[in-house]
Amino acid sequence: FLNISRTTVLLAFENLIAEGYIKGKPGSGTYISEELPENLLLTKNIKTNFDSAKRKNSPEAKGYHFKKYLIQERLDYNRFAPFRPGMPDLNEFPFHIWTKLISTSANEISKNDFGYGDAAGYQPLRDAIANYARAARGVKCENDQVIIINGSQQGFDLVAKVLLSPKDNIGFEEPGYTGARDSFSAAGMNIIPMPIDEEGINFKKTKLKPVLIYTTPSHQYPLGITMSLNRRLELLDYSSLNNCWILEDDYDSEYRYKGQPLSSLQGIDNNDSVIYMGTFSKVMFPGLRLGYLIVPEYLIKSFTAAKMLTDRNSPIFEQAALAKFITDGHYGRHIRRMRLIYEKRKEIFYNFIEQYLDNHITLHQTDAGLHTVGWLKNFSSDVDFSKLMLSGGIYTPPLSSYSFTKKCKPGIVFGYAAYTEHQIKSTIKKMLRCFSV
Amino acid sequence: FLNISRTTVLLAFENLIAEGYIKGKPGSGTYISEELPENLLLTKNIKTNFDSAKRKNSPEAKGYHFKKYLIQERLDYNRFAPFRPGMPDLNEFPFHIWTKLISTSANEISKNDFGYGDAAGYQPLRDAIANYARAARGVKCENDQVIIINGSQQGFDLVAKVLLSPKDNIGFEEPGYTGARDSFSAAGMNIIPMPIDEEGINFKKTKLKPVLIYTTPSHQYPLGITMSLNRRLELLDYSSLNNCWILEDDYDSEYRYKGQPLSSLQGIDNNDSVIYMGTFSKVMFPGLRLGYLIVPEYLIKSFTAAKMLTDRNSPIFEQAALAKFITDGHYGRHIRRMRLIYEKRKEIFYNFIEQYLDNHITLHQTDAGLHTVGWLKNFSSDVDFSKLMLSGGIYTPPLSSYSFTKKCKPGIVFGYAAYTEHQIKSTIKKMLRCFSV
Repeated sequence: FLNISRTTVLLAFENLIAEGYIKGKPGSGTYISEELPENLLLTKNIKTNFDSAKRKNSPEAKGYHFKKYLIQERLDYNRFAPFRPGMPDLNEFPFHIWTKLISTSANEISKNDFGYGDAAGYQPLRDAIANYARAARGVKCENDQVIIINGSQQGFDLVAKVLLSPKDNIGFEEPGYTGARDSFSAAGMNIIPMPIDEEGINFKKTKLKPVLIYTTPSHQYPLGITMSLNRRLELLDYSSLNNCWILEDDYDSEYRYKGQPLSSLQGIDNNDSVIYMGTFSKVMFPGLRLGYLIVPEYLIKSFTAAKMLTDRNSPIFEQAALAKFITDGHYGRHIRRMRLIYEKRKEIFYNFIEQYLDNHITLHQTDAGLHTVGWLKNFSSDVDFSKLMLSGGIYTPPLSSYSFTKKCKPGIVFGYAAYTEHQIKSTIKKMLRCFSV
Repeated sequence: FLNISRTTVLLAFENLIAEGYIKGKPGSGTYISEELPENLLLTKNIKTNFDSAKRKNSPEAKGYHFKKYLIQERLDYNRFAPFRPGMPDLNEFPFHIWTKLISTSANEISKNDFGYGDAAGYQPLRDAIANYARAARGVKCENDQVIIINGSQQGFDLVAKVLLSPKDNIGFEEPGYTGARDSFSAAGMNIIPMPIDEEGINFKKTKLKPVLIYTTPSHQYPLGITMSLNRRLELLDYSSLNNCWILEDDYDSEYRYKGQPLSSLQGIDNNDSVIYMGTFSKVMFPGLRLGYLIVPEYLIKSFTAAKMLTDRNSPIFEQAALAKFITDGHYGRHIRRMRLIYEKRKEIFYNFIEQYLDNHITLHQTDAGLHTVGWLKNFSSDVDFSKLMLSGGIYTPPLSSYSFTKKCKPGIVFGYAAYTEHQIKSTIKKMLRCFSV
């Protein structure tokens, strides 16, 4: 006799029957199936007489030009080494809490929600985000103005779909966030660069009327400037007079190290002209792919339909776990904790750059965010500087790569937040050695 | 003394410091912070003098018309009650295995992969899908031809972006899958209905040249017809002669109850004209939001870039867990198990309809899939029949709702697979009672 229980054997037989390997014949016994289930999974390749000549028209397809936007190939080189900008520290994220919330969600979510969900998002998550955005960002909204999206990049796609037509003019920060610029540009929009001055985006000298202005008021990407209250009011006035929308990308407002943050632009707009966008990539982790739009009431249905037509709804497990992560307080705790860690790293980064690279770099002063800009003292081309660093294995993107006009002062964008004191120190020393090769 | 260990107390203090509630002053002690961290999260609403008159131009926005595609409102009614089509049985899915794979993924995935990932998808998942599609569907491809997407709906969006321009002619199954039709239609394409005959989509009488033909050869949605080998070869010939793409939507090919499945169209195409699309919504669960395209080699970069511009990449946890779910054999086991369950339910459904509703409905014979069509005997309008059923609380969508021309025979689309024997029986009895009210 085998030393296993009768129940185990019966369960094994039941499974074999369920999977189609064996069949029970009443009053007779159990037999191996004549047709094994693998056969049903396998297909035969059918031979044909077709000419195998390649199709000719394909490269002329409309979207074939998209591949020029394929930036990941250049990013693959050392893609998470210091000082890549735009990254939070993934080693500090409480993945154990996150995966536990995912697991418990499986039992707590209604089975209905594992089906095709509400395109605008899982209601408890929309509620949690609305509460957060009202309290933390002064956003004025009802809960159903929140549309859950797969990160900011989907926000650009939906905004283009719902609000824009090809050849529409888009006012764009110069320099600015390339992810947004590429998205609008690939969708056929006409990018109008608007320079950044010390108060933020400056739309005053631009004669072409934009249909939408894209801006990052809390912490301009990549220059790090916070838009002044005065400029905010001027911008809202301009949008009201010119009937133009404003897309407010509030991508890392959680990380302000000194003073009170200013309320969002959306919160001081009385004309329903602002689409507010937030992301969880900087607080949680980019691979999560969740963010949100807060849209004026009259656009809720159009954005919901656009999201439905684009990919129906965002994944339910992520949405449910994130709702609990926020309402259980993990989100606020993680922000407070990381804010102190990042602030300390910022100080370390600034101190070491000053100590070792003072001859080459003047850092822009900033009190917020995960990155900063260093102005080059001895290089007229930031691309040359980047190449020099890359030869030493360090990825420091040139400011000009964020520029549409390529006319900006030579500078480097440094992401300092995702790296430990040791990494910051050793990378800066490595940078120093690049100069002496 | 409190009965807790010194370590616990120290950890609590460290946390309070980390989150900004208290500050340690060297040589002095620990103090409550002057500025509590909540203040940094809060903003003040700023008063302005703006006119609060509503913007006037907004409803004229390009995508405002999207809201007419917002079908979820009509689906909200009893949305998972029998016999809603397109649903797998969520109660049978092994969520315990799935959440365990998600949890273990957190430790096994490289930290890099929690950042911004490859837009084409997580490589182990692409490999697993390529292996599966080659073996189970006769697809001819290299692993890097697989592009991971957020379900079929995103596939339509990407295909439109990369291959089509507004006003392009799309050959479309009539009746056909509304999710695809709405997506192409909202993107401005010109839908050309092509009737379904007993061999599948019939393109022969259509004079307008399509740029792309959308088709579901394995199991036509919603009629359930499997495209004959002869028609497949004719269609590939037509596409070769007319330089038109074919989008092959293989949405539920896993569920074939009798005989060998035919290979995919893609597998017998020698002209690189077929875009093959698969989804995990029918085998796993729709809320997962994962699917894939298998594209010709010369289109890989364009589709990768389109995906990157649309929402960067699909969520990493889902992708990693799904890769393991497939390679560990859970995927194949689940399919084999569910195939037997669904086949049994199909028999039950057919038997009960015959027993109770033979006067009203003739079921279309089918050997595959999760749904079937019932032809109405005494109703000239399937919409009227649906309304009658809805009055009894039963959701049975009319075939005409899948039709572009509204000229099809009156029929009802029944999803039988997601419901237990008891649910099937009681719903059919409930339907019967509708007739006598």
